[in-house]
Amino acid sequence: MLWATEKYKNTALSFKVKDILFKQKSHYQLVEILETNDWGKMLMLDGLMMVTEKDEFFYHESITHLPMALRPKAENVLVIGGGDGGTLRELAKYPSLKKLNIVEIDELVIEASRKYLPFVGCGFDDPRVEVTVQDAAEYIKTSQNAFDLIIADSSDPEGFAAVLIEEDFYEMIKKSLKPDGLYIAQSGSPLSQPEELKTTWKNLNRIFPYTEIAWSLTPTYPGAWWSFVIASQSPIKNQLSSFCPDNCKFWTPALLEAMLSKPNYIQKLLG
Amino acid sequence: MLWATEKYKNTALSFKVKDILFKQKSHYQLVEILETNDWGKMLMLDGLMMVTEKDEFFYHESITHLPMALRPKAENVLVIGGGDGGTLRELAKYPSLKKLNIVEIDELVIEASRKYLPFVGCGFDDPRVEVTVQDAAEYIKTSQNAFDLIIADSSDPEGFAAVLIEEDFYEMIKKSLKPDGLYIAQSGSPLSQPEELKTTWKNLNRIFPYTEIAWSLTPTYPGAWWSFVIASQSPIKNQLSSFCPDNCKFWTPALLEAMLSKPNYIQKLLG
Repeated sequence: MLWATEKYKNTALSFKVKDILFKQKSHYQLVEILETNDWGKMLMLDGLMMVTEKDEFFYHESITHLPMALRPKAENVLVIGGGDGGTLRELAKYPSLKKLNIVEIDELVIEASRKYLPFVGCGFDDPRVEVTVQDAAEYIKTSQNAFDLIIADSSDPEGFAAVLIEEDFYEMIKKSLKPDGLYIAQSGSPLSQPEELKTTWKNLNRIFPYTEIAWSLTPTYPGAWWSFVIASQSPIKNQLSSFCPDNCKFWTPALLEAMLSKPNYIQKLLG
Repeated sequence: MLWATEKYKNTALSFKVKDILFKQKSHYQLVEILETNDWGKMLMLDGLMMVTEKDEFFYHESITHLPMALRPKAENVLVIGGGDGGTLRELAKYPSLKKLNIVEIDELVIEASRKYLPFVGCGFDDPRVEVTVQDAAEYIKTSQNAFDLIIADSSDPEGFAAVLIEEDFYEMIKKSLKPDGLYIAQSGSPLSQPEELKTTWKNLNRIFPYTEIAWSLTPTYPGAWWSFVIASQSPIKNQLSSFCPDNCKFWTPALLEAMLSKPNYIQKLLG
């Protein structure tokens, strides 16, 4: 009997596995795709659970529809990371978007997801998608005043992703956004990764005049309660929209205010 | 090295344990209190995780402040189960409540929680609390037209708790509520326990003319995404309040509409 276990500090979540569908080491990480008994197909990178077929919608709908409700006039979007395609799939629900740019460092994640995880990999099928395989920090150096929305759908800031919460990176993000453009990044669990969230928040606030924090959930991530940081050079809530795309499983317009409502637990954490 | 593992179907959540603080078999179940490394003190009943010090607030705040926002004029409340005291602790934040009745079948849960889990056990200290150690189905037979709010904060409906989702039980609940009284019950995870939720919903709708479903999260419960069913003989949302008690960690008034917003995933499940 095979079990896949993600151990995070002193807590472990284990999934019974029916089959290993794919396992290959890229230049950056070990990419594994497993068929589980209870959670459908699952993507793991270096032993960390990234996507399960059963609960990925919480994360991908939140990281997409939350910023799109804040910047409903967005036309040109950049996804950093997100090689599984789930965020692109959600963005593709907006007819108003003209270009869905994605910069992913690891081509193997894209290839494996398109082949074995079509429920997220389908995001790459939209004709507006333009894929660049590159380090995000290199990519955004070359784009100035280009994006209405940048979504950092990346691994936790360790190893090659550590640069993504540094002040230099945020400076480049600021330059590559349009003046009213918005940046959103997943920032870990307030329960399990409070230090990561505090560092991200502190650095982001040094660079951007307007910031917000939002919460959602992703049952199979460590801590399950999840956070997102949001930043802009313009007030965050100046274009609120209650448009709700079809075919969401979790997102409803009522979630916007709830997720931005800053529970005391988070306020206390960020001081 | 000691780990406590809750296995639910083909998924397991494991907590590294520093110490076993209490372990005793009552007439009903094995009651264990453990000191974990990452989640503080933890209550397990028959090997199922009920409360951790670190994340119990999601569950107890949701099951209390959600119905209190729907029935802000409530004076007389009954908690079914809830022997750890967490729901009483949240109810005690409302000066308007006159009596906090609790009927718990297992006295050992109350004793162990008051002694080893003061962060929830403190709920019993409020002078308005009246404890009855009895089977809830027996208790409510004797009370008619008595309660503004009944909160079923019980184990999952198996073993001695199975009766709590049967139609006969709901008939008794209806009689023991005042005409505009409200019933709320935890109803498991839409992800991990869809059948439990469907049965609960079906039976409840046969007995009550007005029902709603709400969601919240509890990171250490199987599936993490959690559901609550709500029922009344009067329209559910006719007294909406935006009062927010002090000292909540998670609850904010913006959560009310979000939790009642019925995501498509739940609508599809309940058909």
